[in-house]
Amino acid sequence: MESIKDKVAIVGMGCTRFGERWDVGNEDLMVEACYEAFEDAGLESKDIQAAWLGVQMGSTGQPLAGAIKTEYVPITRVENACASGTEAVRNACYAVAAGIQEIVLAVGVEKMSDSGMGRPDSEVTPGAPPPSQFALTANRYFYDYGLSYDEGRKILAKIATKNRHNGTLNPKAYFQGEITVDDVLNAPMAAYPLGLYDCCSVSDGAAAAIITTPERARRLRDDYVLCKGFGLAVGAGQGQLRDYYDFTHFDETVNAARMAYEAAGIKNPREELDVAEVHDCCTIAELVVYEDMGWSQKGKAKTDIESGFFNLEGGLPVNPDGGLVSFGHPIGASGIRMIYEIYKQLQGKAGSRQVKNPRIGLTHNLGGSPGSFTSAVTIWGCRD
Amino acid sequence: MESIKDKVAIVGMGCTRFGERWDVGNEDLMVEACYEAFEDAGLESKDIQAAWLGVQMGSTGQPLAGAIKTEYVPITRVENACASGTEAVRNACYAVAAGIQEIVLAVGVEKMSDSGMGRPDSEVTPGAPPPSQFALTANRYFYDYGLSYDEGRKILAKIATKNRHNGTLNPKAYFQGEITVDDVLNAPMAAYPLGLYDCCSVSDGAAAAIITTPERARRLRDDYVLCKGFGLAVGAGQGQLRDYYDFTHFDETVNAARMAYEAAGIKNPREELDVAEVHDCCTIAELVVYEDMGWSQKGKAKTDIESGFFNLEGGLPVNPDGGLVSFGHPIGASGIRMIYEIYKQLQGKAGSRQVKNPRIGLTHNLGGSPGSFTSAVTIWGCRD
Repeated sequence: MESIKDKVAIVGMGCTRFGERWDVGNEDLMVEACYEAFEDAGLESKDIQAAWLGVQMGSTGQPLAGAIKTEYVPITRVENACASGTEAVRNACYAVAAGIQEIVLAVGVEKMSDSGMGRPDSEVTPGAPPPSQFALTANRYFYDYGLSYDEGRKILAKIATKNRHNGTLNPKAYFQGEITVDDVLNAPMAAYPLGLYDCCSVSDGAAAAIITTPERARRLRDDYVLCKGFGLAVGAGQGQLRDYYDFTHFDETVNAARMAYEAAGIKNPREELDVAEVHDCCTIAELVVYEDMGWSQKGKAKTDIESGFFNLEGGLPVNPDGGLVSFGHPIGASGIRMIYEIYKQLQGKAGSRQVKNPRIGLTHNLGGSPGSFTSAVTIWGCRD
Repeated sequence: MESIKDKVAIVGMGCTRFGERWDVGNEDLMVEACYEAFEDAGLESKDIQAAWLGVQMGSTGQPLAGAIKTEYVPITRVENACASGTEAVRNACYAVAAGIQEIVLAVGVEKMSDSGMGRPDSEVTPGAPPPSQFALTANRYFYDYGLSYDEGRKILAKIATKNRHNGTLNPKAYFQGEITVDDVLNAPMAAYPLGLYDCCSVSDGAAAAIITTPERARRLRDDYVLCKGFGLAVGAGQGQLRDYYDFTHFDETVNAARMAYEAAGIKNPREELDVAEVHDCCTIAELVVYEDMGWSQKGKAKTDIESGFFNLEGGLPVNPDGGLVSFGHPIGASGIRMIYEIYKQLQGKAGSRQVKNPRIGLTHNLGGSPGSFTSAVTIWGCRD
């Protein structure tokens, strides 16, 4: 079989300001994101031949049809927990790569201020909220790699301050203020050892991408961005089935990354990637991602964090837009918000948070819970 | 752009018995459907490179991973109301047509006996249940085309008795007994003029399809079935926006059919189609579909119903497996259950309900509510 590499391109993107958007509903958020994308691409709603909508709390593609007033266009709702937005993009790309549609739209949206996280649903166990799940990872990681709680919490705090700093350079981020390592350490505890600033917030937002063939992209703009690869891995509950589950790394991320690297032809990700957006729902999640992605050696992320390797001016800037820690996490929107940042970075249009000459960038999502995560990875590159 | 025609093939399918399946859960239903499909194709779970899961009440693709024990394979949940199962197939086909994966699985499932229809969800207005919505259509249709209530109800009863008769020939159907026109007319009223037997029931069930390239299909079996076309149309709420909404036909079905016919190269559907499975959630829905599909002239379905044109031995047998009226409607499962019947019919393996030498068959779903329906159409054909 073939890879998706260079078969589809993004020619326009939009992203709302994230945060407590009490003033607007889901449809307004989609309008805001889609019309920025239309304008960016020089296209209109009527040019859209098919669409995919990533949203966790919703039903059918109809709200998107209503928002952008399509006339009987195919719209598919996809949902894969925290990877829902990314899944909208992936499925949209397949349709274009198959030659079925030429110009398609992927939209991610979620409005959580009204509803909080999750909903009454017989299929979903109430279970432990995300911070308490990731607290298991943090405690185990500290134990396995000989970090005292103080040492470990300081390492994690550096991730929080990095992302919040990046967020101050981004007018679309929810939280705008700088925070210090001491702020993180002294914040109210969420789930030991994770404090308030180690965890992302619920939030409202939407993001949109217009996807087409490279041929059509060339006629629309010079700085289109090419798809290089996708990876998606869903755990089958192996965590519960096996005697030992290693809470300090996630096979779903490892496998999703492997697929995406393979598709993109990436052999040495630490060297070859120029910028990345990863799923920092908790700071420990971001740390573990460094290792699962093959950017830091197992147990050694500390060294790279301390050297600033993942800072804006480091070797591989991670979450230059501020990440979930600055944006909050409107479930369906986050995946496309990440791709929006990579798109802008690759175009050199990321303003004061611009990374130096990036040519290839990655996004990563992680949803669900230990043993049955869903992890999605996407890789994008500049045209040659 | 190109059409999907002849680019992908179905090489295996499975379908559970539908009905009140108190003895099993969602995962058991998926196991039942998937392992019938694996056996039918001569494949195993480990051969599946990616999967799509159509389910309305659920979250993420994880339950399917758990059911068939995949190891970090990509699984995407799609949801589009009553078209959710069909959407799983359509998106799976795009991935194969794009050359990204070679052997993929599409599964539809829903377990409603426990939960009933719908769920508490801020995005979904409780509104009017489906029979009361379709009652508007029936009343308006009778009025516009000069049918008395007695005449109209008898016409609809013929659809119910046809589908229930077909269901008696199908061991997988929920309701097995023959019913008469008098049974239908004398049944308790659901929403005037629709009685109990005019409306489908909630139900539990699952169905699965294994999709691959035609090249690979040839190596797996002689009687694989080829995809000929898809159509999907989502209404943007135009019904509410316009001065006049014609309750006697649905633009979503018309547009989905147009797309699918175009993809399949079908010019005269009444003549060219040999068998069809359509969304008979209420008998009046099936009647309107005859006209929206271009099989009967507008307002003239009565003639074709009375002549038996849509009966098993008629010119275009519709719902040979018994339809929603015999199976009930486990939301995510129905679309693939319909494709299962077309697949078996095209293979000549439909037993005592076998249609004579069909070469091309169609499925149709309709979900949502007037003005913002989602309609999906698929067309399948025998290999040359």
